[in-house]
Formats: sequence, structure tokens, C-alpha cells
Amino acid sequence: MPDDRLAKQINFILEIDRLKDVIRRSYLVGADRRENSAEHSWHLAMMAVLLAEHAREPVQLARVVEMVLLHDIVEIDAGDTYVYDPKGSEDKAVREQKAADRLFNMLPPDQAVRLMELWHEFEAMATPEAQFAATLDRLMPLLHNVHTKGRSWQEHGVVSSQVHERNRPGRPGSETLWAYGESLIDEAVKRGYLAE
Amino acid sequence: MPDDRLAKQINFILEIDRLKDVIRRSYLVGADRRENSAEHSWHLAMMAVLLAEHAREPVQLARVVEMVLLHDIVEIDAGDTYVYDPKGSEDKAVREQKAADRLFNMLPPDQAVRLMELWHEFEAMATPEAQFAATLDRLMPLLHNVHTKGRSWQEHGVVSSQVHERNRPGRPGSETLWAYGESLIDEAVKRGYLAE
Repeated sequence: MPDDRLAKQINFILEIDRLKDVIRRSYLVGADRRENSAEHSWHLAMMAVLLAEHAREPVQLARVVEMVLLHDIVEIDAGDTYVYDPKGSEDKAVREQKAADRLFNMLPPDQAVRLMELWHEFEAMATPEAQFAATLDRLMPLLHNVHTKGRSWQEHGVVSSQVHERNRPGRPGSETLWAYGESLIDEAVKRGYLAE
Repeated sequence: MPDDRLAKQINFILEIDRLKDVIRRSYLVGADRRENSAEHSWHLAMMAVLLAEHAREPVQLARVVEMVLLHDIVEIDAGDTYVYDPKGSEDKAVREQKAADRLFNMLPPDQAVRLMELWHEFEAMATPEAQFAATLDRLMPLLHNVHTKGRSWQEHGVVSSQVHERNRPGRPGSETLWAYGESLIDEAVKRGYLAE
């Protein structure tokens, strides 16, 4: 029987297994189905490790990685809010804060505080680490969309101005990756994957 | 159009999307299906962040996290080899090295070398970081099995001595977590989830 601290940690680890059952709008390149938020978080973490050199200023990579690993955990309670759904976005902050309160507080207090702070840091996009994480979180769905012929954009009637707008907050984290994202949007329009 | 270095990085990031389609033997606790290796890698990385304090000696957490994030990437070519399949384990090392050669060498040379080294370090289980990663990689399937009533053990006729044997290399990384794993095995036998 583990002590109380380990028991809390293990209960949280079991609870977040449910993130594997939160389904995003993006379709995979490697398989014919939509992506879940757990595998998306893994992919973003690998992207952070591989693309850190493109951050606008030097980042503490370990913090970026932890941030993207946990950034979607609130979706276990709050669900995945589609970025192009204005209705769902209205009460997103309230729903997600409630989810964070319940989920992170399953952990021992020091870890609950730490994860809550990292999550708030990610959401606020004010530090170099959070800005770079935001850049990655915007580039990844662009890659998935372009390589599945715009499948999720078309399913939701998304047009290019919305995608440019969505990509904008990625600029402070990395001029290079933001510009690459812009070029992907233009390419998608040219190929007919995305309506102008 | 990104420069050659970024193009290589992006191609690799797209290629590893396929890890989401490599299916392990473990069943999820949070959903009625088997787990894929990408979401498993995310879960291990979160486990590393949360349980680092239980490592036998202080570890460089960032290296543990990177190691578990990439430890299964070779399965994209080599497939997931079930740990209780002696036949599949025979040529596992050869198949996985070939996979590592193809996959990691899609990256710019400096990153290819770095990922190859981290993967070899994980496989060798000789450093504190690799030993701790091994502990986590053994504890996680125990948790999944115990919380799905031993479903994957039963499907493959696995008995408790095999599971104890499999858990053994987890001991050098963390006495605490290894002992907790042993207690889970005993509990699984007592509850009839695992044959003695």
C-alpha cells in the first residue's frame, strides 16, 4: 500500500488516462481517424524538443515540454473546444478553470500548485516559454490539415482569414515557425484545401 | 518554403504521426480499447514529471522526459513487440536498430545523433535516467492491467512469475516504485486478475 502522497500521484495518473478519450477536430496523417488530446500532447512535446532552436529567444525547453504535456488535461472535464466555435469559446475559460481546480487538486498540494501555475502560464502566453508553446500548438493543426487535404477545415466550413487569425498569436514565440505556418495556409488555399 | 534543416525536422514530425497507429497490448482505463504507443509515451512523460522524487538517485528530469517521449518511435517500423512474446523478442534488437537508423536519420545529423544516443541510453538501462525511465515503463502497464481486471494478461495467458520477472529491471531506478509494482502484482493475483 503506497503512502498517501504516492497514492494521490497514482490516482491522478490513472485519472488522466481519460485524456486519450478526448477527441479533437484534427485528422491524423498516419491513420484515418481524428486525433485524441493525449497523443496530440505527445506530438507537441516531440515538436518542442526538435524545434526549440527556432524559438524567438532562448527558452527553458524542459518548461516548454512540461507545459505542452499538461496543456490539454483540463479537457478531461471541459472537453475539447474547437477554436473556430465562437459559442463554445464563450464560457471556455470558466469551464476549464473548474476542470483545473478539480483535476490538479487530486495531486499533493505542492504539485497541484505547480501544475496550475504552468497551465496558467501556458494560457497567458506572456513568457517566452508559453509563447513558444503557443506557436507549436498553432503549427501542428496546420500540418495535419494541409496533409489531410484540409479535411477538418472543410468539415467545419473554415475560411483562410480565420486560419490566419488563429495563427497570429504564434508569431511572438517564433517568427520562423509563424512564417512557415503562414506559407502553409497560402499553399492550402492554392491547392483548394481551404476556402479563401 | 522552409530551409533544408527545418524541412527535415518537419518531415520527421509528420512521419512520427504514425506512432499513433501502433497498437500496444494494454487496454485503457479511460476508454474501452487498446492503447497506442504515442498516447502511452505521453502518459509516461507525465508520470516522469510527477514521480521524479521517487527515483533512487536524483535524475535530470528533462532527459528522462525526452527519453520516454522517443523510446517507442522505432515501433513505427519495427512494430510493438509484446514483452511476453519470446519469439518476437528474438530479433527485436535488430529490427529496432534498423528502424532507428531510418527514422532518426531523417533529421539533421546533429539531432539524429542525439536521438539515437538517447534511445540507446534508454535501451541500455545503465544511467540513473534510463533506469528511472525503465521503472516507469514497467509500472504503467501494471496499473493498466490491474485497473482493467487483468484483461491483457488473460488474453495472452500470462502468469504472475512472468510479471514479476518483467518488473525486476525496474528496481534499480526506484525501490519505492518497484515495490509498489510488486504489491500491484500480488493484489492482482489475490483478486483473480492474474494466474499464479
